Amino acid sequence: MFFILEIIGTVAFAISGALTAMQKKMDPFGVFIIAFATAAGGGTLRDVMIGSTPVGWMLDLSYIYMIIVGFILAIIFKIQLDKLRISMMLFDTIGLSVFALIGLQKGIDYGLHPAISIGLGTITACFGGVLRDILCAEIPIIFRREIYATLCILGGVVFFVLKKNHVPMDLVYLISAITIAVLRVLVVKFKWSLPTLGRY
Amino acid sequence: MFFILEIIGTVAFAISGALTAMQKKMDPFGVFIIAFATAAGGGTLRDVMIGSTPVGWMLDLSYIYMIIVGFILAIIFKIQLDKLRISMMLFDTIGLSVFALIGLQKGIDYGLHPAISIGLGTITACFGGVLRDILCAEIPIIFRREIYATLCILGGVVFFVLKKNHVPMDLVYLISAITIAVLRVLVVKFKWSLPTLGRY
Amino acid sequence: MFFILEIIGTVAFAISGALTAMQKKMDPFGVFIIAFATAAGGGTLRDVMIGSTPVGWMLDLSYIYMIIVGFILAIIFKIQLDKLRISMMLFDTIGLSVFALIGLQKGIDYGLHPAISIGLGTITACFGGVLRDILCAEIPIIFRREIYATLCILGGVVFFVLKKNHVPMDLVYLISAITIAVLRVLVVKFKWSLPTLGRY
Repeated sequence: MFFILEIIGTVAFAISGALTAMQKKMDPFGVFIIAFATAAGGGTLRDVMIGSTPVGWMLDLSYIYMIIVGFILAIIFKIQLDKLRISMMLFDTIGLSVFALIGLQKGIDYGLHPAISIGLGTITACFGGVLRDILCAEIPIIFRREIYATLCILGGVVFFVLKKNHVPMDLVYLISAITIAVLRVLVVKFKWSLPTLGRY
Repeated sequence: MFFILEIIGTVAFAISGALTAMQKKMDPFGVFIIAFATAAGGGTLRDVMIGSTPVGWMLDLSYIYMIIVGFILAIIFKIQLDKLRISMMLFDTIGLSVFALIGLQKGIDYGLHPAISIGLGTITACFGGVLRDILCAEIPIIFRREIYATLCILGGVVFFVLKKNHVPMDLVYLISAITIAVLRVLVVKFKWSLPTLGRY
Repeated sequence: MFFILEIIGTVAFAISGALTAMQKKMDPFGVFIIAFATAAGGGTLRDVMIGSTPVGWMLDLSYIYMIIVGFILAIIFKIQLDKLRISMMLFDTIGLSVFALIGLQKGIDYGLHPAISIGLGTITACFGGVLRDILCAEIPIIFRREIYATLCILGGVVFFVLKKNHVPMDLVYLISAITIAVLRVLVVKFKWSLPTLGRY
C-alpha cells in the first residue's frame, strides 16, 4: 500500500519536473534531468546530509524506472496533463505526504531529534521542487507563493504528538499523511497563501 | 568565548539571509529557509564533502535555535536593521572570522593538507552567502564585488604560518581571527574591491 | 597515458569555467571558484552521493594545481583562447571522455548497477558545467542546446556491451572513450542538436 503510494508520488513528481522543463524549451536530456532532480532530489539531499550513502536511488533501480515512466507520460500527454491540473495536483499531494513521512522515518531511524526528523521529511518532500526551479534559473516557487513545506511541518508535528500518546504506528502514519493531504487540497481549493514579509 | 562568537556569527548570518529573502518578497517559510541556508549552508557543504555525517546542525539543536532567533529578529526589526548597517556588518564580520577558523580546524582534524583546510574554512564562511544568492536566483555577490573569501584565505595563511612557528595555539586562533576581522572592516570602510577580469 | 588525458581534461574544464566567469565580469576570486566548480564539481557530486569522502580533490592536491594552471592560462590568454575555439573544444572533448569513464569505473568499484554507473559517469563529466551555469545564474546550457550528456550515456552503453563480450579491458576503455570523443566532434562539426520538447 505504502509502496504503491510512493510509486504514484514519484511518478507525479517526475511529471511535474518534466512539464516545467518542457515549458523552458529544453531538449529531451534536459527534460529527463529535471524530472529526475524533481523526483529524487529531496531524498538525495536527505541521504547525503545524514550519510546514508550510496544514496537511495543508486541501490534500487525501481526509482529510475518510475522516473522514466513519468518522463514518458509527460512527453506523450503534455497537452492533456496541462488540462488535468486537478488530477495532477492530487497525485502531487500523494507524493508530498508520502515523501514527508519517509524522510521523517529516516530521521527517526538515524536517532535524530524529532525537530530534525520533521526537517528531513520537509526536505525530502520539498527540495526536489526547489532543485527543479534552481535548474530552471527561477526563484523556487515554494519560497514565494505556495503553502507546501509548512504542511509537511504540520504533518510532522501531528505525527510526533500521536506517537507520544501511544497511538498505534499504523494509525500515526495514516492520520499524519491524511492531515498533510487534506490541508494541501484545502490550500489549493481556497487559494490560501502565507503573507509575504517583504513590504518595506 | 569562542562559542559566544559562534552564536553571534550564526545569528548575524541568519539575519543577513532573512533580510535578503524579505527584499525578494518571500513568504515566511521562504525567509526561514534562506536564513537557514545562509547560516548553516557553509558548514553543511563542508561536512558533506569531508564525510562528517549526519551534518553538524542535525546533532546539536542549538544551531536551529540561533537561526530561529536571527529569523525573528530580522522580521521584527527589519526597518531598524536596515539602518544599522554598520552594526550588522560587524556581526557579519565576527561570523566570517569564526566560521573560517572552525572550517579550517575541521580540515586539520581530518588530517587534510593546509591548503585544503584553508579551502574548507573559506567554504564554511562563504558558501552560506553563495547559497543565499543562488536560492534568490542571483549571481553570488562574493564572486563579483565583495572581497570576502580572499580574507578567509589570507587569515588561513596567517594561521598556518603562526602554527608552523610554534606560536601557542590560543594566540594562533586569536591573531588569525583578528586578521580576518580587521581586514574586513578596512575593506568595507575604504570600499576596496578586486578588479573584475571581464573586460574583453 | 590516462593520467595525462585527465590532466588535459581538468585544465580544459577549468579554462572553460574561467572564461564563462570572465564574461560575467567576476572578480578573480569568483573566476577561480567557477573554474574550480567546473573542473571538480562533477567528481565532487559523484563522490558525495556514493559516500566516497573526503571527496577526491581533498586527498590529492594535483587537482588544485591543474585548476590553478587552467585559471592562470584563461586570464593570460583570454583573447587568444576565444579565437582558439576549435582547440578548446578538442581539449574539452578529452575531458568529457575521460571524466565519463572515471565516473563509470567508480560506479563499478562500488558494486553499482551498470545503469547507475553510466549515470555516475555522466554526472562526473557534465555536472561541472551545470554548476558553472547555475553559479552564473543561467539555465544550464547542456539542458537546452548541446548534445553532450547523451554522448556520455552512449559511450557508457558501448563500454558495457564490449565488457560483456569479454573484450580486453584496455580496449574497452579505448573504444568507449574514442566513441564519445568522435561523436562529440561530429556533433559540433555538423551542429547536431536534439529537438526541444517545449512547443505547446
